[in-house]
Amino acid sequence: MDFSNNNNKIEALHGGDVYRNEVRLDFSVNLNPFPMPQEVTEAMQAGLSEIHQYPDPSQQKLRERIAALEGTGIDNVVCGNGASELLMAAVHAVMPRKALIAAPCYAGYAVALKAADSEITEYLLDEEKDFAVDEGILNRIDDGIDMVFVSDPNNPNGRLIDPELKKAITAKCEECGVVLVIDECFYPLTEEGYVRKVIADNALHLRAFTKTFAIPGIRIGYMISFNEVLLKKIRKHLPEWNVSRIAERTGEAAAEVLESTGYLRDSVRVIKQEREYLAGQLERLGIRVYKSDTNYLLIKSAAGLYERLLKRGILIRRCANFSGLDDNYFRIAVRQHKDNEELINVLGKVL
Amino acid sequence: MDFSNNNNKIEALHGGDVYRNEVRLDFSVNLNPFPMPQEVTEAMQAGLSEIHQYPDPSQQKLRERIAALEGTGIDNVVCGNGASELLMAAVHAVMPRKALIAAPCYAGYAVALKAADSEITEYLLDEEKDFAVDEGILNRIDDGIDMVFVSDPNNPNGRLIDPELKKAITAKCEECGVVLVIDECFYPLTEEGYVRKVIADNALHLRAFTKTFAIPGIRIGYMISFNEVLLKKIRKHLPEWNVSRIAERTGEAAAEVLESTGYLRDSVRVIKQEREYLAGQLERLGIRVYKSDTNYLLIKSAAGLYERLLKRGILIRRCANFSGLDDNYFRIAVRQHKDNEELINVLGKVL
Repeated sequence: MDFSNNNNKIEALHGGDVYRNEVRLDFSVNLNPFPMPQEVTEAMQAGLSEIHQYPDPSQQKLRERIAALEGTGIDNVVCGNGASELLMAAVHAVMPRKALIAAPCYAGYAVALKAADSEITEYLLDEEKDFAVDEGILNRIDDGIDMVFVSDPNNPNGRLIDPELKKAITAKCEECGVVLVIDECFYPLTEEGYVRKVIADNALHLRAFTKTFAIPGIRIGYMISFNEVLLKKIRKHLPEWNVSRIAERTGEAAAEVLESTGYLRDSVRVIKQEREYLAGQLERLGIRVYKSDTNYLLIKSAAGLYERLLKRGILIRRCANFSGLDDNYFRIAVRQHKDNEELINVLGKVL
Repeated sequence: MDFSNNNNKIEALHGGDVYRNEVRLDFSVNLNPFPMPQEVTEAMQAGLSEIHQYPDPSQQKLRERIAALEGTGIDNVVCGNGASELLMAAVHAVMPRKALIAAPCYAGYAVALKAADSEITEYLLDEEKDFAVDEGILNRIDDGIDMVFVSDPNNPNGRLIDPELKKAITAKCEECGVVLVIDECFYPLTEEGYVRKVIADNALHLRAFTKTFAIPGIRIGYMISFNEVLLKKIRKHLPEWNVSRIAERTGEAAAEVLESTGYLRDSVRVIKQEREYLAGQLERLGIRVYKSDTNYLLIKSAAGLYERLLKRGILIRRCANFSGLDDNYFRIAVRQHKDNEELINVLGKVL
């Protein structure tokens, strides 16, 4: 992608452009509002003290920890410089002529697919179903498709995929010889996420610590799959030492925290409570709120809401660049209570 | 590349496997022995305090600083998660059917080229010329080659390319429509490096802060070129947010230090002094030393030297996996004086 001197384009594609805006409260990026555990903070600092050595090129300890967390073998894990690197490497490994994505969905799939000059076809999600991925997508998966990307939960709306439908999508992809990427970066922050871990027989499960620990500046994600042949191909397209020493240490500690503490359960409890608070207050203000199972909400309001909030130092995510949405749609992260209250207060004034 | 459970392979490919060896002194990785400036340390720490935000996807400030350092425009700079990521992205952008590399040379070019299933042809360097890149390489550049990688100075021997020859290589590549990558990651640590900065009209200059500031754990490299069309293509193959927030801050500070202080001059003075000390002492011990212009030395001794030193906690780089070399060759980093003395002392005992 060409970012050169085109900052509007960057902001349009993703949230979080705090580099070119005066921002007091950033509701545009979707990060766990629950405070980071001490173990992870300490691991980062330890990593920083070890930057005079190369990271472990085989990421052995990191992959061992993730394998233990996910209940797989070490060869079922590939680590990346953020989930975005793994999306790109998967596309380079598959080089799909034609790929299917949902609409609206996360913009990063299309960014990666452009590297392979893939043709992208979209399955339009239904507003009346809160833009949840529905069974209609099954009819769009056939031999003419090389790669499918679904997100569980979907982004920007936050709705989980029904577990039975997820199985059916996986089965259909396997039947048609289609490579399936299931983006589960936000899955741990849903009520499903800390109780049920499913790994499909043949899919690529994309996971990351970024959202769960609110550390997008670190860059650490991973892919889990039982398809070791495909993982090996993907690894071939990853540069050496792709995970920094700091990210390595952070990921090791993060995996251990997720395996051995109640951090996720506590996070999800707070997120659910605050999501319900926000949804209720937004509806009270006459804003349409779509159902979400995670730490962000898609809303429909009047165009211009973005500018009015930004004037008061609050950044939200404009959704006009998502297929199927327009400039009446916005995405709002679920933050800590005092921030959410502040948003509602300011909204009450600017609406 | 497949690293799964194959640690010997990792160690063979690069130096620095401190993860699977008991190492007291690591002479296998080539890092500036001069202490890191305070400004860079502080920037890393500042970056760590900002990991709750995404890195700037356009890397604006970082590219501005590098452009100022290199005397180019911002659009002549692409930043990467280490030089290794940029090698991979350049190969993905060019997809060469056939590539020319020198032998011996850095193993990373072949690693990247494997992602494109490129055919690799080698130009064998002459031991009698200390494995310096010589003009014979010009005859090997023709229309049948899509991409050439040269390293200035070359690795593992550390010899600079004659400036006139470098110009001739660039011209020949341009004439034949060949994409030329000049790896200059060690260039700043040579006596040429802080006085002369040349950017060829059409080549891709690969540079990094890794060696100069001894920070391989951070991952920050960049590519400089006047071929903006090619840089744009390369950017398309880089994932979003590929440079972490910590690396971004570190790179910004590093570029400023290089531009405004005598850090490099002081480093090169110490390196030259210690290189000459080491070379003299090694020769006194009957070891053949090849000419080097930078912070590492290729030596020829008896096979088994690696194991004998490792038993005493000293790691050096075995060179048997370099084309054109065998298990009598080793590479040794130039470290601080007390470490170099210690190496010579131990060598005196084990030889």
